[in-house]
Amino acid sequence: MPIDRNRLAIVGATGLVGREALRILQEWGVPPGRIIPLASAGSAGTAIEYGDALLTVRAYDPGILADAGVAVLCVSSGLSRRITADLEGTDVRLVDASSAFRMREDVPLVIPEVNGSLLEDKPRLVASPNCSTILLLTALEPIRRRYGIEAITVSTYQAVSGAGREGVEELFNQTLAVLGGSQPEPVNFPEPIAFNCFSHESEVDPVTGLNGEEQKIIAETRKIWNDDSVRINPTCVRVPVERSHSESVTVTLRTPATTDEHRAALEGAESVRVVDDPSRGCFPTPRQAGGIDDVLVGRLRTNPGDSVDANGRSLSHVLWLSGDQLRKGAALNALQIARLICPTLFQPAQSPATRVPDVVGT
Amino acid sequence: MPIDRNRLAIVGATGLVGREALRILQEWGVPPGRIIPLASAGSAGTAIEYGDALLTVRAYDPGILADAGVAVLCVSSGLSRRITADLEGTDVRLVDASSAFRMREDVPLVIPEVNGSLLEDKPRLVASPNCSTILLLTALEPIRRRYGIEAITVSTYQAVSGAGREGVEELFNQTLAVLGGSQPEPVNFPEPIAFNCFSHESEVDPVTGLNGEEQKIIAETRKIWNDDSVRINPTCVRVPVERSHSESVTVTLRTPATTDEHRAALEGAESVRVVDDPSRGCFPTPRQAGGIDDVLVGRLRTNPGDSVDANGRSLSHVLWLSGDQLRKGAALNALQIARLICPTLFQPAQSPATRVPDVVGT
Repeated sequence: MPIDRNRLAIVGATGLVGREALRILQEWGVPPGRIIPLASAGSAGTAIEYGDALLTVRAYDPGILADAGVAVLCVSSGLSRRITADLEGTDVRLVDASSAFRMREDVPLVIPEVNGSLLEDKPRLVASPNCSTILLLTALEPIRRRYGIEAITVSTYQAVSGAGREGVEELFNQTLAVLGGSQPEPVNFPEPIAFNCFSHESEVDPVTGLNGEEQKIIAETRKIWNDDSVRINPTCVRVPVERSHSESVTVTLRTPATTDEHRAALEGAESVRVVDDPSRGCFPTPRQAGGIDDVLVGRLRTNPGDSVDANGRSLSHVLWLSGDQLRKGAALNALQIARLICPTLFQPAQSPATRVPDVVGT
Repeated sequence: MPIDRNRLAIVGATGLVGREALRILQEWGVPPGRIIPLASAGSAGTAIEYGDALLTVRAYDPGILADAGVAVLCVSSGLSRRITADLEGTDVRLVDASSAFRMREDVPLVIPEVNGSLLEDKPRLVASPNCSTILLLTALEPIRRRYGIEAITVSTYQAVSGAGREGVEELFNQTLAVLGGSQPEPVNFPEPIAFNCFSHESEVDPVTGLNGEEQKIIAETRKIWNDDSVRINPTCVRVPVERSHSESVTVTLRTPATTDEHRAALEGAESVRVVDDPSRGCFPTPRQAGGIDDVLVGRLRTNPGDSVDANGRSLSHVLWLSGDQLRKGAALNALQIARLICPTLFQPAQSPATRVPDVVGT
């Protein structure tokens, strides 16, 4: 049963990212009847609250999307590849949140605030970057535009929900076990996560010594900035935080700036919120960043290891950020892309006369 | 009642660092009768297990230490200052683990593996550095000796026990509350610590934007290395870990090295253990580092943002470390200093004939 072009599909609707996508659509006022939530056959029939409506999850099958307007893929890389192949030759627009196509030359890799212009000719397939990359480049964009960025050193403090629902359950179960006096064995992660932290679990390349997450930050940043000369030094680490990643960042600018100029560039920038009040000890935390759209940025300062000129300008600046990696780091970024490609599908519900009939839920 | 010179005092014996010091003395085989555990009047009478013996904590008073051999101060800066003033003019050697005297020009600031030679003339007062500094400089010493270090960028992942027993209790109580569904208010920390992380709670300087912990790392490293030219860029962060700090470190060498040379310098170095097996995803974690003496070092690699010559040599290297901040980061380092000043006090118990009589406990 094909879906008409005035519908949008969330594929992987029962996962952490898919559910976050549905929450965002609801906040945007997109009527439930316009949404097709899809998942594996095992999850078909699951009912998901959507405002006053209930969305009923349907099983994905190759024919089901052939006539949809846009599908946002919140699934694994393997499934993304399969679904994209299924839809080859159709007109459905695909926004893929997985890593499957990010580095393919003919697929744009987009953060709307950074390189949204790539969406102008409505590409059939667009990739949304890795969560750590999205949060980092969203926060740095206002600085890059004004001063240029030559190098980045970043250490991440990544939440377990980046590893899906299993990651969150492992954190909570292990934490309870440790508080009860036992020593839990890791299941999904290589090390215990309760009251512990460890190098990101993605595979480490024996030649470069970089893990998969670090490789993604480097390759994706260069592609998004269309700048192979930018020097990037990432260290990716998991911390026992449920939700939202944080990053400790040092940037080398191309043109020197003061901390106040740096702050002015960030304040009022799209999708960035400055939280930086030393007098009250108020800086970004993952807890504050959870559930909100903006990336929080603070601890703004010049690098004390670098020179500052007589006007207080330096090439090297330091900041700390926290951002919801399920939201701006995944679902929100993918939906922003989808909205720029098919804006009409995302218009909020209007008066009854112009409203798209709700065929699911109500 | 003065204590004779063949005794050593642990002042602040009931705190986290003091108790760790007693555990280390026991491991070293120091007989209980040689140890005077002191604390505030409120803690006097507390019994602390020491192998088969029980040590009874006594109340500190100005006269009590006048004839002791060495006193290790595991108390606040304020108390350290008071006790040091009390003992002015006596021959008792003082090793202070607090920040009270670290930057005073006439007081050596010592990590035995780095600048232990400063202890040769048995100074009356020696300061032990900040925990983050000790762990960092202990790990970097073998590299500094061979290649020299010009610059450091470090982001810390600091355990709550650095803030004492209250920090640990706050972590556990808040975690239980969050798992039970409530939103706990922070007490000792500026932000909730359960499943969260935040910029280190020490005061932020409004001019430099650096917090107290970051300022300590910079000033102490320069003093210990006797090198005001070293460029240091620290970011200090608390994570919901009970014990052991971790640090993500990028160093700029003065002479280029390969990763293998870097590893060879670290392997077999004093107080350092290389844990770096990418094939098994095995790297340092705070959990592994808890309760052991060595600083664990891994994720050894060249900085992918810096150039590498044809022989694989680079000036910029990256590593990850975890170390027990109560042990090498505090109690152990202070006791190593004390042992170098008064070695006879730390000799393990011998045959009954040569054994110092145990006047406390047994």
